[in-house]
Amino acid sequence: MPEWRKDPVVQRWVIIATERSKRPTDYLGAPDACQGCECPLCEGHEEETPPEIVAFREKESKADRPGWWVRVVPNKFPAVRIEGGTVQRRQGIYDVMDGFGAHEVIVETTEHARLLHEVSPYQMAEIIWAWRYRMLDLRRDRRFKYILLFKNFGAVGGASLEHSHSQIIATPMVPLDVHEEIQGTREYRERTGNCVFCDVIRQELAEDARVVHQNESFISFAPYASRFPFETWIIPREHQADFAAMGEDEVHSLARILLDTLGGLMYTLRTPPYNLVLHTTPVNGTEHDYHWHIEILPRLTRMAGFELGTGYFINPTPPEVAAQELRMARTSGYLRPPREEVPQYV
Amino acid sequence: MPEWRKDPVVQRWVIIATERSKRPTDYLGAPDACQGCECPLCEGHEEETPPEIVAFREKESKADRPGWWVRVVPNKFPAVRIEGGTVQRRQGIYDVMDGFGAHEVIVETTEHARLLHEVSPYQMAEIIWAWRYRMLDLRRDRRFKYILLFKNFGAVGGASLEHSHSQIIATPMVPLDVHEEIQGTREYRERTGNCVFCDVIRQELAEDARVVHQNESFISFAPYASRFPFETWIIPREHQADFAAMGEDEVHSLARILLDTLGGLMYTLRTPPYNLVLHTTPVNGTEHDYHWHIEILPRLTRMAGFELGTGYFINPTPPEVAAQELRMARTSGYLRPPREEVPQYV
Repeated sequence: MPEWRKDPVVQRWVIIATERSKRPTDYLGAPDACQGCECPLCEGHEEETPPEIVAFREKESKADRPGWWVRVVPNKFPAVRIEGGTVQRRQGIYDVMDGFGAHEVIVETTEHARLLHEVSPYQMAEIIWAWRYRMLDLRRDRRFKYILLFKNFGAVGGASLEHSHSQIIATPMVPLDVHEEIQGTREYRERTGNCVFCDVIRQELAEDARVVHQNESFISFAPYASRFPFETWIIPREHQADFAAMGEDEVHSLARILLDTLGGLMYTLRTPPYNLVLHTTPVNGTEHDYHWHIEILPRLTRMAGFELGTGYFINPTPPEVAAQELRMARTSGYLRPPREEVPQYV
Repeated sequence: MPEWRKDPVVQRWVIIATERSKRPTDYLGAPDACQGCECPLCEGHEEETPPEIVAFREKESKADRPGWWVRVVPNKFPAVRIEGGTVQRRQGIYDVMDGFGAHEVIVETTEHARLLHEVSPYQMAEIIWAWRYRMLDLRRDRRFKYILLFKNFGAVGGASLEHSHSQIIATPMVPLDVHEEIQGTREYRERTGNCVFCDVIRQELAEDARVVHQNESFISFAPYASRFPFETWIIPREHQADFAAMGEDEVHSLARILLDTLGGLMYTLRTPPYNLVLHTTPVNGTEHDYHWHIEILPRLTRMAGFELGTGYFINPTPPEVAAQELRMARTSGYLRPPREEVPQYV
C-alpha cells in the first residue's frame, strides 16, 4: 500500500510508493515507448488493462472487447489505491495515512496514432461526457475530497504511454494549490463583491490582447501572469463553479474550443509536450464562488532551481505575444484536417 | 525591462520577459551544448562574460583575467534586472512591477569538465565562502527581500551551460513558498514551543532510517515526505536561521558533507540531473525561528499534470530506501578520487 505522507513544515502531502519501490537502476535509461500493436490502450487489446469501469460502445458489443469509442479503466500502476482508510497516524512528529485514492485512465480514441486535437468534434464531446460521468460517479464516495482530471502529453509532459489518454486521481484531501486558489477567490469576493475569474474575463474581452478563441459559452486566453510560454486557459463566460454542472450545449461548445485551442498550440509549437489540468470546485464543498476552467500548460521551459526554491516562474514569452501567435494559427487551415470531417465511431 | 506580474487569484508572481521575448520557433530543437574552448565560463575566456563582481584570485592577477579559482559575474541573460523600481502598478485588476532584481552566476571551477562533487574540499569551502559573501553583499541593498541561491545541473535540471556554476537571484518580495515555510515553522513553534527542523533532526537521528551522512556540524538525510526520489537535505545540527551566519569551522564541515552527499548521489544515480536550493531566512526579517538548510533534488521523475494541478508530488522511491542506497555509496571508494587529493588552485 502506498502512503500519503505530510511535510511537517508546509503541510504538503506526498504519495510515497512503499512497495515495488524504484531503486537507482530503475531510473537509468528512458522507458520503452509504447508502439502500435503492443499498446494496451489500442482497440483489440482490452484484456491487457484492468476490467473497464465504463465505456461508450456499440450496443451489441461486450465489456472489455472491441466496439468502444471512449473507454475508462483503472490505472494498472496506480499512484493511489482504492483499498485502505483515510485515518491519519502519527509517526513521531510526522503524519502519514494509507495511500487511499482512485486513479483512472480515460482512453480517448481507439487509434494509436491519433492525438487529442485530431479527433472529431463529436468524439471530443464524448470524451468530455466521459470526464463528467467519472467525476459525478466518484464524488458519490464521500471519502474523496477532490477529483483531479489531467492529461500528460509527450515524454517531457510526463506521459509514459503514447496512446491518447487522460487521467483522474481522486484524493482524500483538498490539495494545497486548490485550497489556495479557493482562498484567493474568497478574499477577492470579500474585497470587491465580485468573482475574480468573472472580472478577469471582463478585462480580457475588453482589452482583447490575450484572448485566443471564443464562442457562445467559452473563451480561451493566455493568462496575464502565465507561468509557462503559451499557457492557455479555457473558461466558461458565465459564472459556474462546477465542471460537472455543464449541460449539453456547453459540452459541445467546450469540445469545439478545446479542439481550436489545442489545434492552434500543436500547430504553432509543432506538437509540444503539454499538461492539461481541470480546475473545478472540491467535491463536498459549497464553493459557489469558484469558477471552473481548464489550464493547458505547454512544457517548453524547465522547472528548475528558481521555480523549486520560490514557487515562482520565469516565462520567456509574454502572453500577449503567445495570444497573437495562437490567433494567427486559427486561420492557417491546419485545424480540422479533411480526414476528421467524417467522425470515426459516433 | 522584464516584468514581475502577479496572479490575481493565488498572488503568485511571475517574471515575464517582455523584450527579446521568445517566439514559437525559439523553442524548436535543443540549445547547443557549450563545449570546451567555446565556453564563456572557462579560464582564459573572462572577457566573454560581463565584468566580474568578485573573484577569489592570485594576488598578482588582474580582474577579468586568468588567475582566479572562484569567480562571480552578472548573468549575461538575466531573468531580472538591477535597473528599475519596486513600485507596483495596476493594469485593470492586475498588478505589475518592473522586473527588478539581481541575477548572478558563481563559476565554481576554472575547469570545464570538473563537476561540483569532484572539486577538492578546499575548493568547495571557497565556493561556499563566495556564496556567503554574495548574500551578505546583496542584502545591503534594502530593496531586496529575499536572496535565492540555487544550482541547476544537467539539461533536465535546467542548466544551459555545462561548466559547473551556481546562481543567485535576489527578489524584491519574499517568495510564496518561502513565506509558507516560515508560516509553518511559526505555527509549529506556537503549538509545541520547538523549532520544527530541530525536532526533525532529533527524530531522524533517533530513528536512523533516513540519515545519509553526518559530521560535527551537519547531517544529511532523505526527508520523510520527500517530493523527489533520492531527495536529500543538508541541515546544521544546531539551530541557525541564517546561512550567512556560518563561521569558519562550519564552512569546512559543510564543504565535506556537501562533497560526501553529492558524491554519493552522483555515484548511486550515475550523474543524474539535479537542482540544489538553499533555504535561508529572508533578508530584512528577524526570523530567528527559521532553520536554514540545503535541498538537493535529483530530477529523475517528471513534474506533470498531477503535480501542477495539486502542488503535491508522487515519489516512487521511499526515502528509507534512498537513504540506505546512499549510505552504501559512502563505502564505495568513489568519493574523493585520487586526482582530487591535490587541490588545484588553493
